[in-house]
Amino acid sequence: MGLKKKLRVIQYGLGPIGIETARLVLKKSNMKLVGAVDISKDIAGKDLGEVLGTGKKLGVKVSDNAKGLFKKTKADVVLHTAGSRIPKIYDQLVEIVGGGLNIVSSSEELLFPLKGSSKLAKKIDALAKSKKVTVLGTGVNPGFVMDALPLFLTAVCQDVKQIHVERVVDAGTRRYPLQKKVGASMTPKEFRDKISRKELGHVGLIESLFIVAGKLGMNLDEVIETIDPVITKKAVKTKFFSLKPGDVAGIKHIAKGIRGGKTVLSLDLRMYIGAEDPHDAIRIVGTPDINLRIEGGVAGDKATAAVLVNSIDAVVNAKPGLTAITDIPAAYYTR
Amino acid sequence: MGLKKKLRVIQYGLGPIGIETARLVLKKSNMKLVGAVDISKDIAGKDLGEVLGTGKKLGVKVSDNAKGLFKKTKADVVLHTAGSRIPKIYDQLVEIVGGGLNIVSSSEELLFPLKGSSKLAKKIDALAKSKKVTVLGTGVNPGFVMDALPLFLTAVCQDVKQIHVERVVDAGTRRYPLQKKVGASMTPKEFRDKISRKELGHVGLIESLFIVAGKLGMNLDEVIETIDPVITKKAVKTKFFSLKPGDVAGIKHIAKGIRGGKTVLSLDLRMYIGAEDPHDAIRIVGTPDINLRIEGGVAGDKATAAVLVNSIDAVVNAKPGLTAITDIPAAYYTR
Repeated sequence: MGLKKKLRVIQYGLGPIGIETARLVLKKSNMKLVGAVDISKDIAGKDLGEVLGTGKKLGVKVSDNAKGLFKKTKADVVLHTAGSRIPKIYDQLVEIVGGGLNIVSSSEELLFPLKGSSKLAKKIDALAKSKKVTVLGTGVNPGFVMDALPLFLTAVCQDVKQIHVERVVDAGTRRYPLQKKVGASMTPKEFRDKISRKELGHVGLIESLFIVAGKLGMNLDEVIETIDPVITKKAVKTKFFSLKPGDVAGIKHIAKGIRGGKTVLSLDLRMYIGAEDPHDAIRIVGTPDINLRIEGGVAGDKATAAVLVNSIDAVVNAKPGLTAITDIPAAYYTR
Repeated sequence: MGLKKKLRVIQYGLGPIGIETARLVLKKSNMKLVGAVDISKDIAGKDLGEVLGTGKKLGVKVSDNAKGLFKKTKADVVLHTAGSRIPKIYDQLVEIVGGGLNIVSSSEELLFPLKGSSKLAKKIDALAKSKKVTVLGTGVNPGFVMDALPLFLTAVCQDVKQIHVERVVDAGTRRYPLQKKVGASMTPKEFRDKISRKELGHVGLIESLFIVAGKLGMNLDEVIETIDPVITKKAVKTKFFSLKPGDVAGIKHIAKGIRGGKTVLSLDLRMYIGAEDPHDAIRIVGTPDINLRIEGGVAGDKATAAVLVNSIDAVVNAKPGLTAITDIPAAYYTR
């Protein structure tokens, strides 16, 4: 790496994940942080080192004017951690790509744009091709545990009849927004009300399902999605919440792909406070069968930040356009 | 796939693995078998369907003249399953690439050409580039369990300090050549003699070690390789061998990468008759730690054939040259 030019990275979005990715970029021998964007009034104008808590100034000021920053700062790639839904981040993406920069984004929808966003995604793809840059959405879930990893395993299969993925996360060990997001401490009724208003549920589960089904040509007849509360039987306490028996501890979000009356693909995600046996498990019914288990699971913002930063190299070297995790070489840890 | 042209495949080598890959190609909707090569006098001239035991003729005769076949038969890719060592297969590869054909090979050495073969590998690379075709060596081990999969997992790591892979295969469930290859039924002395003449040991373990260490920039000070017999304590019988207590049941082949006095990378492969708990396990010491286990392990010729055939798509679409499993999009099951 010594003789290679360092990759110049702009951090876009300085929430919990963005702070993790920016800190990680600082540790990489082949990257340097050359800029940062955040719209929050509390942060804009501050030195990035201060925002990241590195204990020293980095000489990079956080800007709330992305377009201006892209004009005056040369960079190779933008780490985008500023939203999940494509309609909400569309203008940001257009500005970044318009500025001639590659994107690695944590947007769950960008990983696999579904019907509602496919027109916007096509526009991003066309713009990226014209600007000769690459755009990728990735992460741990979606992006790894429930899609990329099961697909990766199918390489050794002569036949794949069914795939079942189970992911159990102890939300009690995670940060406040995640505990809140899974509905912790709500009453079952509050939870059900939020579900009916589509205010709860894991963004990206359906995306993972369609990535896997699409890549394997599963031709599903039907997709069934259910979201239910996990109710705690005993009192549990986390740093942020105190639950009493009968409270919601978290969420059970399941997506199933049906073909010929059979569930040929299932993604079963449970994120709740007090989960006793956190793990990721992948079962492929095929030739041969595969039974994989990751003890403890791949969880936490550290893993999410890692996969985003580790993807930079592959994205910078990929063909222009809006690409997908399955269409470029895999991301690896880099020093 | 309906409108796409089918990929035209030539099977080169009709040993146990080649027969499996050819049979698998016949099942794929996007491929067709257009030719076959084998130097064995028993097979040459026969209809391929007869050799594969499909119960009907395929109208493809097995040829013992590869060069002649490449001249008269248009194809996209050659599935090469005719040897492990690069010096032994070099002339075959030159003929195939010279004929303008891509290669997916089961050659363990081709996966990661080490010093002894690097000159020949460079020649293959140059020829492949000039002919605009891609050459890949792949498989399950090496090619997946002890290299590609652990590397794939590092995508979610901010830091990787150590990687330890353990693979335990019950050789008693495998075909005769594998049981023989691991030394089954030898006396410990016969085993040691064979080791000292380098006639035993798993081809590819060192390749896996260098792929992982190289990709992660591990800068190893030293590599230590040991091969020992696994001695059976009780009598065991397989389809092919009867072992009495004290006989060799198989092999324990370990490769370690050392840095700063510590084992930072270890590949521990045990293949023996009567192994009670066959599995693959990968442990990454890092941020986060990863502890993965595949119950039963990814074993058997079916898996090897699968990864070879499933790699065809990525190889046909890859940049020309001698490529590596880590430098192209992953292989996936295709229908």
